Amino acid sequence: MKKDFKVGEFYEKIYYVTEDMGRQFASVSGDYNPIHLNEEVAQKTRFGKKVVHGMLLGSYISGIIGNEFPGNGSVYLKQELDFRKPIFYDSKVKIKIEVLEVDLKKQRLLLGTQCFDCEDNMLIDGKALILYEG
Amino acid sequence: MKKDFKVGEFYEKIYYVTEDMGRQFASVSGDYNPIHLNEEVAQKTRFGKKVVHGMLLGSYISGIIGNEFPGNGSVYLKQELDFRKPIFYDSKVKIKIEVLEVDLKKQRLLLGTQCFDCEDNMLIDGKALILYEG
Repeated sequence: MKKDFKVGEFYEKIYYVTEDMGRQFASVSGDYNPIHLNEEVAQKTRFGKKVVHGMLLGSYISGIIGNEFPGNGSVYLKQELDFRKPIFYDSKVKIKIEVLEVDLKKQRLLLGTQCFDCEDNMLIDGKALILYEG
Repeated sequence: MKKDFKVGEFYEKIYYVTEDMGRQFASVSGDYNPIHLNEEVAQKTRFGKKVVHGMLLGSYISGIIGNEFPGNGSVYLKQELDFRKPIFYDSKVKIKIEVLEVDLKKQRLLLGTQCFDCEDNMLIDGKALILYEG
């Protein structure tokens, strides 16, 4: 694992989120809330259509942190997720992980964890604290 | 949806977490960090064996909130997860969702979201803020 993380360093990854991914997430999480999967019910909500599970994007953040940036060796200590805007199926989501603080002594990194739509509107704001054993 | 939530009211659910669930979560999230799935690698870590993805439990919390308590109609605004202890496969995890604050005017609930092992050790502490349109 890379050791020399610097404040301001970041990693970005784009996901194309489909309803099939939403169905898989429902199967794993047990979250079959119709707002995510039932068009008829979703049309009557403030969103007007089916929305992506916020925690599916949270899971992608977890996946990037554990595998890509900072990568294997990362151990999650905290994750904050602030769901700002709904995300709809069949859209691109950019996830940005940015180093906010480096504590070499405690082997900890504070990361910004944000999701954006294709127009750069922030969908999720958040921070993760991780232990990294490089 | 039930409307009259009171501070202190809570809901508990027990999950039996298996490695198969971990593999399904890896498939959905892309989180194939070997600490979760590779015994050889995991043995060399501070945990000594494979640990459950923390965000898998986060997904279960999302599932309970969206489907059971408070249930359908819940819209996630925020989730904080504080991962305190590792969780290993083939163990029972109790998730407790508790009403901490009720704001009827803004239709918001602040929830405690905690996970415990079978000896009542806290594995995850956290809070969720949700909008509920009952």
